[in-house]
Amino acid sequence: MTTVFDRQRAGQAAIGVVEGLFDTWRSITGDGNRQAIRELRNFVPELNAVEVPSGSQAFDWSIPPEWRLRGARLEGPDGEVIVDVDHSPLHVVGYSEGVDSVMELEDLQPHLHSLPERPHAIPYRTSYYERTWGFCLPHSTRESLPEGRYRAVIDAEHDDQGSLTYGEAILGEGELQLLLTAHMCHPAQANDNLSGMAVLAAVTEQLRGGTPGMTLRSLFLPGGIGSLAWLSRNEALVPNIVGGLSLACLGDPAGLSFKATRSGGTVIDRTAEMVGRDMGLDLGRRPFEPYGFDERNFSSPGIATPFGSLTRSPHGEYPEYHSSDDSIELMDADRLGEAAEFVFRCVVTIGSNRRLLRYEPRGEPQLGKRGLYGSVGGIRSRPSFESALLWVANLSDGEHDLIDIALRSGIPFSDVVAAADALSDTGVTYDAGHASSQSTSG
Amino acid sequence: MTTVFDRQRAGQAAIGVVEGLFDTWRSITGDGNRQAIRELRNFVPELNAVEVPSGSQAFDWSIPPEWRLRGARLEGPDGEVIVDVDHSPLHVVGYSEGVDSVMELEDLQPHLHSLPERPHAIPYRTSYYERTWGFCLPHSTRESLPEGRYRAVIDAEHDDQGSLTYGEAILGEGELQLLLTAHMCHPAQANDNLSGMAVLAAVTEQLRGGTPGMTLRSLFLPGGIGSLAWLSRNEALVPNIVGGLSLACLGDPAGLSFKATRSGGTVIDRTAEMVGRDMGLDLGRRPFEPYGFDERNFSSPGIATPFGSLTRSPHGEYPEYHSSDDSIELMDADRLGEAAEFVFRCVVTIGSNRRLLRYEPRGEPQLGKRGLYGSVGGIRSRPSFESALLWVANLSDGEHDLIDIALRSGIPFSDVVAAADALSDTGVTYDAGHASSQSTSG
Amino acid sequence: MTTVFDRQRAGQAAIGVVEGLFDTWRSITGDGNRQAIRELRNFVPELNAVEVPSGSQAFDWSIPPEWRLRGARLEGPDGEVIVDVDHSPLHVVGYSEGVDSVMELEDLQPHLHSLPERPHAIPYRTSYYERTWGFCLPHSTRESLPEGRYRAVIDAEHDDQGSLTYGEAILGEGELQLLLTAHMCHPAQANDNLSGMAVLAAVTEQLRGGTPGMTLRSLFLPGGIGSLAWLSRNEALVPNIVGGLSLACLGDPAGLSFKATRSGGTVIDRTAEMVGRDMGLDLGRRPFEPYGFDERNFSSPGIATPFGSLTRSPHGEYPEYHSSDDSIELMDADRLGEAAEFVFRCVVTIGSNRRLLRYEPRGEPQLGKRGLYGSVGGIRSRPSFESALLWVANLSDGEHDLIDIALRSGIPFSDVVAAADALSDTGVTYDAGHASSQSTSG
Repeated sequence: MTTVFDRQRAGQAAIGVVEGLFDTWRSITGDGNRQAIRELRNFVPELNAVEVPSGSQAFDWSIPPEWRLRGARLEGPDGEVIVDVDHSPLHVVGYSEGVDSVMELEDLQPHLHSLPERPHAIPYRTSYYERTWGFCLPHSTRESLPEGRYRAVIDAEHDDQGSLTYGEAILGEGELQLLLTAHMCHPAQANDNLSGMAVLAAVTEQLRGGTPGMTLRSLFLPGGIGSLAWLSRNEALVPNIVGGLSLACLGDPAGLSFKATRSGGTVIDRTAEMVGRDMGLDLGRRPFEPYGFDERNFSSPGIATPFGSLTRSPHGEYPEYHSSDDSIELMDADRLGEAAEFVFRCVVTIGSNRRLLRYEPRGEPQLGKRGLYGSVGGIRSRPSFESALLWVANLSDGEHDLIDIALRSGIPFSDVVAAADALSDTGVTYDAGHASSQSTSG
Repeated sequence: MTTVFDRQRAGQAAIGVVEGLFDTWRSITGDGNRQAIRELRNFVPELNAVEVPSGSQAFDWSIPPEWRLRGARLEGPDGEVIVDVDHSPLHVVGYSEGVDSVMELEDLQPHLHSLPERPHAIPYRTSYYERTWGFCLPHSTRESLPEGRYRAVIDAEHDDQGSLTYGEAILGEGELQLLLTAHMCHPAQANDNLSGMAVLAAVTEQLRGGTPGMTLRSLFLPGGIGSLAWLSRNEALVPNIVGGLSLACLGDPAGLSFKATRSGGTVIDRTAEMVGRDMGLDLGRRPFEPYGFDERNFSSPGIATPFGSLTRSPHGEYPEYHSSDDSIELMDADRLGEAAEFVFRCVVTIGSNRRLLRYEPRGEPQLGKRGLYGSVGGIRSRPSFESALLWVANLSDGEHDLIDIALRSGIPFSDVVAAADALSDTGVTYDAGHASSQSTSG
Repeated sequence: MTTVFDRQRAGQAAIGVVEGLFDTWRSITGDGNRQAIRELRNFVPELNAVEVPSGSQAFDWSIPPEWRLRGARLEGPDGEVIVDVDHSPLHVVGYSEGVDSVMELEDLQPHLHSLPERPHAIPYRTSYYERTWGFCLPHSTRESLPEGRYRAVIDAEHDDQGSLTYGEAILGEGELQLLLTAHMCHPAQANDNLSGMAVLAAVTEQLRGGTPGMTLRSLFLPGGIGSLAWLSRNEALVPNIVGGLSLACLGDPAGLSFKATRSGGTVIDRTAEMVGRDMGLDLGRRPFEPYGFDERNFSSPGIATPFGSLTRSPHGEYPEYHSSDDSIELMDADRLGEAAEFVFRCVVTIGSNRRLLRYEPRGEPQLGKRGLYGSVGGIRSRPSFESALLWVANLSDGEHDLIDIALRSGIPFSDVVAAADALSDTGVTYDAGHASSQSTSG
């Protein structure tokens, strides 16, 4: 496993993903998602497109029919095109049923969506579970529509024989599972959530060597139903899920923010806290709540994996959210790269984490005879590595993991790992267990 | 169970109780207590007078003889009446033995009690467990007593064949027991504790419909020995006591204040915290201490029920305490009504509290197909009721009760209950247990 | 057990120890340690010198050869004596091998140690586990050394047939063990650690009557290896060690500071908190870290006793540390006496600590019939002793010890003990266990 991260490369890759996928017609189902997965393979060749047939059961839900959108436009009284999905996928209400109908403006209005408070932006609207149709347009355009007869054309169908598509890259081997997810269903919106997809692709690219003893799964999922689909097909893995992070809204100017897991105090929470500290970030901390992104289903009572979420502006808390104002201009390569480094460090930390035991647990180990200690005593300042050795030796009791030691001692995790390696190499300690520890002691 | 509370009616009822009972000669035993219980039946027809024979054992104690006071006066050297119990029951030391004796002022002084720091007030004094007699009078009066011979007359006896009387109203049915108590032994003092008795009567009047699955017991008890008497006669109920609240000093101008249970974190503590929040109060919080009111005995090691106490000024911490200055002028109908609403909400909360389980605990429930969710997605602001549904669905794991959910989510308890009802009605959840949960998670 | 402490006598005794032992050539082994133990018997006649043969195994370590230093001097080009160990034992690097050699200044320099930042002080240096030799001298002296040939003479040997010596006084009887330790290996340094040795001797002198039901062990140990030597010879006692305190750096002007045990919340931590409160100190609190003094080995994973440390300036955090500037002038009899009182109170507390149970645990005990309660009721201010009685009676549930009660109630420990004694004497409570409780409830 490499532990060296190239932040600049990650930032550039992420910007590339945002730009490359911006115009794909992504939704909870459909060819746009397949196209996006194909493009993501430029960064993650291991990425598979998994098809889940429409009508499959996913716990309380069933996989919806596949939505096939071929075109959509609204024509005015004089035949002029008011909006056309070719200009932006936001113009059609996501999952709209097909229509080709001429009607008075008054009858059209219930099918129009706009944002009075952002009159020049196209809103993002969907209707997955009630079959209807509609157009989204700037409020200023809507206000200027003349009376008259309009033609609404949505060339779309819902195919019961179709499928839902998600992307999954499986890296490394091992019983324990670590999950990174990003929802992929929001078309033409940069921060929510091309930024999450981009960070996930960029970090996965640099993690292709895997993590020792663990399987890393990078999942590009249609929001909500995608995580249900994955879980229902991978339920046997659930007991082995060490934890996960959902990635979203990582390109806007706000600082990085971690949303705690449902129970708190898990390896995910402790890792995020420590990585934020080691990176020198003023990491935002938000309590768990049962809405947000993919963590929703992973945190349900019958699944109950330790799942956090990394964002900048939290879910819905930036002004451009769910509109055409959520554009590429909001993105910044440095910010995407910083987010990718945070995720990378979390993965490396969990991969390196372990609990240790001492062959001789009574008293301190004699570091000097193992070449691990300065020979002249009495010197005032203790080198930080000797501190790390003493901390690791002291907490190698099978109950504390390396994250505990780093948090309690204030020593950077990389130094703690180096000390643990040195103590193992010189016969002081041996491994007692992997990163799955849920210990919160410290 | 009604959940609608009429605060104004409660306040008026409470003032009525204070005024109606002020002059009754109440003590730890005696006819004054029986008379008070009869008057309280105007508000709580279910109230029973329970007689516990003198000499009965109550754990480490025995029920004292019944005190029969027929009159008491102190006559001066010229035969003038210095004090007479007909003017105030405070003039005689509570539980005084009978006396009819003429003596010099010097010999009388050890039997006189006054308050130098409140020279115009009559102090409240008792001597239950050492047989003596005495008079209480304003310090200014005492200071002006001339030398000479005084006649002390107390027409009283202690009857070993008598009994101790307490009032008990049993409302509703169910194995679980919820207790509300007020000490009734302090004569002619409004805040301590006609206010507690008044609030207990007023809230019980509006709770006569009972609480589902629980028995509510409203107890009017002589202080200390009354709770011992009740406990010794009802020991079989102790394991089923969900908790209790003692009510005292609820009419003075201080804000409401909750004294925690002995262990803290119980359903009583969590309920009080939540009700204070939902009522928008700046609720005072005091730690448990083993003195105060009826909670003393309910919190003893061998009883150990979760028992809190609701007051305004805590025990002994207002200037008029235990004197004739604790008068009806201290009372206020709005304040008594507010206290009654607090208690009412606590009872309703504990009665409504439960833990839930999900039929399908994996993933989120599909609220849309059950008509519980707006159909158009993408809208920014989530209605609070949808939040409540998601919170309840997420924490329906058999470990969290509805109080936990309300406290953790910040959502008003009534909305949490409505969400729980909606999820049960639509087949998402089922009840896993009643309010007896001692869970402190959240 | 006496509970009366004479602080002034302790302070004077401590100053006497500092002055009497300042010039002894103490190290991790050797006759200087034997001499120090003999002198300490003036205060603690029970003090034994325990010899542990060189080469004995002590867990991961072996007892080093005994260092026999007979003299050491450095002569300049003209035969003048630059430094001589007769002027200060600091002049020779501790544990130096023997040498008698003439060499150029350039070749001598690697064997010289000085402090550029404190040019007039002699540093304290040792080399226990790498065999070498050296001299320590003021930097100003070193800077003025002329070129030329120097003669280095250290008349010393390392005897494989020797032993390590530590001092142990065993006071009182009982299965439970309470340990007080001070490291004794630093020659000619007052604060580190003649102050610790002095406080240990002074407090032990006043504890010679022992503590009921417990064995108190006062240990004067060579740093590091001394605690390993003691532990390896007394491993059977480890499960019975209630806890311990290492004493060091107790004479400088800083306030007293307590370093928590490894796990925190033990009887040692709670005792230190309470004693600091009862003495009215602004006690410093430092978290555990796996370096410092004798607590290092007692806190290792395979020993894991609750071991705290009492200092003023923590380990290494005063400017004179590990140099000849750590002189007797830093010491103050009042400060040493205050430290001794803190330790004395800790021992008395742990010796007096116990959990209680009630013969009749239901309800409050009737204090009045046992003569423990004022007979006239209604008085506003409760005497503190009655509060102590009620607190002890309430928490006599077998789970809380007297320290818990003192901490939770805010009542001085001595009053809590008196209340516990009164309740036991009057048949209310009985002992449920000794001070070994690790309860952290409260």
